[in-house]
Amino acid sequence: MIFCHFPPHPPEDKKIDMAASEMAPTDKGFKEKSSEAYAMKAGDGPNSYANNSTFQKRAVDSAREVIREEIAEKLDTHTLSLSSSTFHIADLGCSVGPNTFFAVENILEAVQVKYQTQGPSSRTPEFQVFFNDHSGNDFNMLFKSLPQNRNYYAVGVPGSFYGRLFPKASINLFHSSYSLSWLSRVPKEILDKESPAWNKGKIHYSNSTSPGEVIRAYEAQHADDMECFLSARAQEIVYGGLMMLIIICRPNGTPHFDTLATATYETLGSCLVDMTKEGKVSEEKIDSFNIPIYFMSPEEVEVAVDRNGNFNIERIQILPNVLTSTTLSNASISTSHLRAVMEALLKEHFGDEILDELFNLYHKKVAEQPSKFGSGKAIISLFVLKRKAN
Amino acid sequence: MIFCHFPPHPPEDKKIDMAASEMAPTDKGFKEKSSEAYAMKAGDGPNSYANNSTFQKRAVDSAREVIREEIAEKLDTHTLSLSSSTFHIADLGCSVGPNTFFAVENILEAVQVKYQTQGPSSRTPEFQVFFNDHSGNDFNMLFKSLPQNRNYYAVGVPGSFYGRLFPKASINLFHSSYSLSWLSRVPKEILDKESPAWNKGKIHYSNSTSPGEVIRAYEAQHADDMECFLSARAQEIVYGGLMMLIIICRPNGTPHFDTLATATYETLGSCLVDMTKEGKVSEEKIDSFNIPIYFMSPEEVEVAVDRNGNFNIERIQILPNVLTSTTLSNASISTSHLRAVMEALLKEHFGDEILDELFNLYHKKVAEQPSKFGSGKAIISLFVLKRKAN
Repeated sequence: MIFCHFPPHPPEDKKIDMAASEMAPTDKGFKEKSSEAYAMKAGDGPNSYANNSTFQKRAVDSAREVIREEIAEKLDTHTLSLSSSTFHIADLGCSVGPNTFFAVENILEAVQVKYQTQGPSSRTPEFQVFFNDHSGNDFNMLFKSLPQNRNYYAVGVPGSFYGRLFPKASINLFHSSYSLSWLSRVPKEILDKESPAWNKGKIHYSNSTSPGEVIRAYEAQHADDMECFLSARAQEIVYGGLMMLIIICRPNGTPHFDTLATATYETLGSCLVDMTKEGKVSEEKIDSFNIPIYFMSPEEVEVAVDRNGNFNIERIQILPNVLTSTTLSNASISTSHLRAVMEALLKEHFGDEILDELFNLYHKKVAEQPSKFGSGKAIISLFVLKRKAN
Repeated sequence: MIFCHFPPHPPEDKKIDMAASEMAPTDKGFKEKSSEAYAMKAGDGPNSYANNSTFQKRAVDSAREVIREEIAEKLDTHTLSLSSSTFHIADLGCSVGPNTFFAVENILEAVQVKYQTQGPSSRTPEFQVFFNDHSGNDFNMLFKSLPQNRNYYAVGVPGSFYGRLFPKASINLFHSSYSLSWLSRVPKEILDKESPAWNKGKIHYSNSTSPGEVIRAYEAQHADDMECFLSARAQEIVYGGLMMLIIICRPNGTPHFDTLATATYETLGSCLVDMTKEGKVSEEKIDSFNIPIYFMSPEEVEVAVDRNGNFNIERIQILPNVLTSTTLSNASISTSHLRAVMEALLKEHFGDEILDELFNLYHKKVAEQPSKFGSGKAIISLFVLKRKAN
């Protein structure tokens, strides 16, 4: 059993836009969980996440059919009808929409169809949907953009999904799209000058000076996080409940350095290093900055689920690759997308003023060698897990 | 049965900070409810609601004991244990805290004590608390200020409490403090030049040119709203569930013109009229502005509950009067308080630039005749309702 790090007295984090201490109840009651929170770029401006998440939208679309099939085949409507007349769905790492709404509506329609095929329509439950993200997420925008014609009760849940978010056995179906690559925190060792894993001059494991140690630190953090995630969900979901996780992965057997992450973060890191030469960014700033994203392989997910022991993997579906080399090697598209995802994190650490120049530099480098980005390996995988009855 | 107005196609409101179209499911499914939403002043600056809600805080304190007594005597823990291991509390009109947190903690402790006296401690449920307010409320601030050491799962619910917010029979205990005086909207007739209830040159029923008609329009709106409120809650609460409503009332038998509202809004209205003379506010702006607040009497609550038929009134407790004449006649205190409550509403209609002058004028007028404010009648009443088993 992995120790889910819930220090009793987390340091108070004043950068409330970017980081928040979240509650994480354990079996022994509630304790505080200090985890770093990475909000997507808020609002709806040109660089916002809402206007730059077309990759995610396409993945959700391509996952639609698979999710509907799995609900039709695997959802146990009999268990639900015994305990409550409401079907509870939670989307973990929902950001501000609209993709979360499309995903939820798809699930909801599939569940309705399932109920209708199982018995008289009067048995169709009401739906309550929990939209979860870190407390630094722009919930005000999320709430204002909720679909007018929705046929579910909408609720926002602030907190890290690496801790407990819901009461026991209160959720029938979990969904998460593109969120689980974010670790709960930057691995400690890579920020420690005394550690062999110190990641000097780099911002990710992609091109580290001591790559083995750095990758091991990321791998260990990821393994801990996955166990925290699965053990929290195992308590919150009903027996027989389904969990649908869409994750950008690296293909099984692919070394970390061959992934899309390498191309992206190596280039972003090199842009920052270029800016030190002009005195616009200090070396110390780069040394203390690392991106808490990890590209797991489907095999690693299987290992984590096996070790946790509370879920069966019902299906692993590699989705049609929307991350085509044409798209990825388009400098404008890939720059906009990266900026939407990374801006808040970069701004918190480096300040607002470097961002335009940084992404102009990034755009130039992608335009100069587009093939480097088109060839970075990445697959989008949909994992369908079912809670075992203990 | 009162018709709860859910027009199918509400006009899209662009002033998203102040007004929001909320979902309001009916028995026949979800429809859109167009209601006007009045958010308290957001943030935590000197004029914020968070820093100017001491009246409310004191009322919550004085209600503490009564709420604990009622939970100890009236809460049926056996019903709950049959359906779920979670106790669900909802605070309606929560604003941004911290009063909502104090109120919730008090309820939660009382419920825990009740469970502990009823059986072995293992039966104590988990708690999930739903914080509700209009979608224009600052939920980001609410979420960031959630107590670190809370022992409940916190959730935000955007929407008007004059419509459905929760699935059927999903809430064990409702609480609402200082919110029910806000109507769902300004009564239509008083904005209509052709109506005998047109409220020209005034901003409330307090000193209307056609007081009888204006008051009747407010009364009718209030009666409709109360029926919508009670019928929505009757569906959402479990049989035997309790509802605790703290409301500023006028004493039974007191004419509307003798209330605190008169003193306050009459004075505020006269300040606006003064500003028309300087050309800073137009007459049309005043004619089209009305404050959607209604001071009901405890008797009117009894009538509404009787007519609805789904609840028994278990207790009506007049709370110790924290609205003392000393406090109310203090010009600085009453001005700060009024500004915190009214600023967002005034700003939306009149613009930001008039606010400082308006409240300086108001402050002067209170200082000139403090006794007018000290003598305005108002009582704070706590109503304890219990859902009948149908």
